[in-house]
Amino acid sequence: MRICRVEHDGRPAFGRVEGEDVVLLDGSPLEGAVRETGTVLALGAATLLPPVVPPVFYAVGLNYKGHLEHALAKGYPAAAVPERPEVGYRANNALTGHGSPIVKPADVEGRFEAEGELVAVIGRRLRRATREEAREAVFGWTIGNDVSARAWQHADRSFWRSKNSDTFKPMGPWIETGVDALAQTTTVRVNGAVRASFPTGAMIFDPFEYIAAATEYLTMHPGDVLWMGADGTCQLEPGDTVDIEISGIGVLSNPVHAETPPDERQRR
Amino acid sequence: MRICRVEHDGRPAFGRVEGEDVVLLDGSPLEGAVRETGTVLALGAATLLPPVVPPVFYAVGLNYKGHLEHALAKGYPAAAVPERPEVGYRANNALTGHGSPIVKPADVEGRFEAEGELVAVIGRRLRRATREEAREAVFGWTIGNDVSARAWQHADRSFWRSKNSDTFKPMGPWIETGVDALAQTTTVRVNGAVRASFPTGAMIFDPFEYIAAATEYLTMHPGDVLWMGADGTCQLEPGDTVDIEISGIGVLSNPVHAETPPDERQRR
Repeated sequence: MRICRVEHDGRPAFGRVEGEDVVLLDGSPLEGAVRETGTVLALGAATLLPPVVPPVFYAVGLNYKGHLEHALAKGYPAAAVPERPEVGYRANNALTGHGSPIVKPADVEGRFEAEGELVAVIGRRLRRATREEAREAVFGWTIGNDVSARAWQHADRSFWRSKNSDTFKPMGPWIETGVDALAQTTTVRVNGAVRASFPTGAMIFDPFEYIAAATEYLTMHPGDVLWMGADGTCQLEPGDTVDIEISGIGVLSNPVHAETPPDERQRR
Repeated sequence: MRICRVEHDGRPAFGRVEGEDVVLLDGSPLEGAVRETGTVLALGAATLLPPVVPPVFYAVGLNYKGHLEHALAKGYPAAAVPERPEVGYRANNALTGHGSPIVKPADVEGRFEAEGELVAVIGRRLRRATREEAREAVFGWTIGNDVSARAWQHADRSFWRSKNSDTFKPMGPWIETGVDALAQTTTVRVNGAVRASFPTGAMIFDPFEYIAAATEYLTMHPGDVLWMGADGTCQLEPGDTVDIEISGIGVLSNPVHAETPPDERQRR
């Protein structure tokens, strides 16, 4: 089953994707059974929103061996190598949906990169989960693009603007509930050319290890998301279109726009 | 005006504190005008929830000179000194209300500390705010206790369990809308004894500077909170009661409990 969130009559609504249609739902399928509203939209004409707005937006870093080796070669301190599955965070303001632009701020310098990530969407309240309970608590899977401005990432005390500027976290196009997510392939394309491709499951710690470890101390809730890291990054330029495909889930596609320079815009 | 959130009929509801009463409101005063429901509760008997659950939970570190000097003396790298107002983050799972216990995990070792913080509650959608627009966008002020397990804070790659374990972020008791928050005094008491006291406004960067700087790159939304850091920390032990008072706002009080050891609890 594919669950999306769309804009309908100026409001967000959940829907079930059926072929080329979106069957609108009343309420949130993350919070129990829902009914169909009777309204059906054309998928191609719908504005897809991030499929969920999480109560807590978890993300993990350096979770693929290839990415880790790359980071160490670039001068990342060896102390940053993950020895345990420890979650980090991103911020909801940065979320944007499939098809919406990634806006590159006018003052970003240096590398401005995409990272294609598997995202676990939590479907149950969960504390001190075993690995098996963690597996059962994943409602489904979606795709994230962890857009990063590297100079800011290295210069700043937190990831506030390097990873959490508005539009830096495309997520979607939908949540797929019926896929063996760790048996898939993640492919990153820019303007149609493959720039990274890796086995989605070749992680240092898998989602269930992260969930079990995190819930030793914290409660996860329905709608929480856990972004699983990437292997391989690629440079983005305004005018590009970046696609993250995870087989069995779908394709998250976003154009890259240049921010309107300050002297050409009205103060908002 | 004092706005709180209480549990009523098993659900959260906003209320206005009037002396010893809570006048329940229909809807969220952070999202526009609201009506009274006609129900009035006794404040003393009400279960106070965190006064808001933020879309994004911002927090700043090392924002008082005294705290900074203390941290540097304890071996914090000089590179960590804030040169610019850069926001960080905390996580909603850790929020708990006035009167609810702070639960110290069984395996916390070393310092387990309280930090009394002023919290700005955002009331408007805000992007590229001037300092004056930032000031006008603050709906009101509340109090936070940034409970921290220091050994984990230093050992872990993120603040996931050191600052975001369940119950580590008491917030409340309410939002005060009519106070000059930066002209107040913050006092931290443990079991009634004063353990820290400092001028609330003696910050390196004030809330409006943080909001103006952050919104250069990101959109803040109604309900977002910004925790402003603390000057002075104090050790907590199970059995203690910790009060954070900010004059003109109120007192956030929480007992400290020891976690039930794993061999004495049922698997949840």
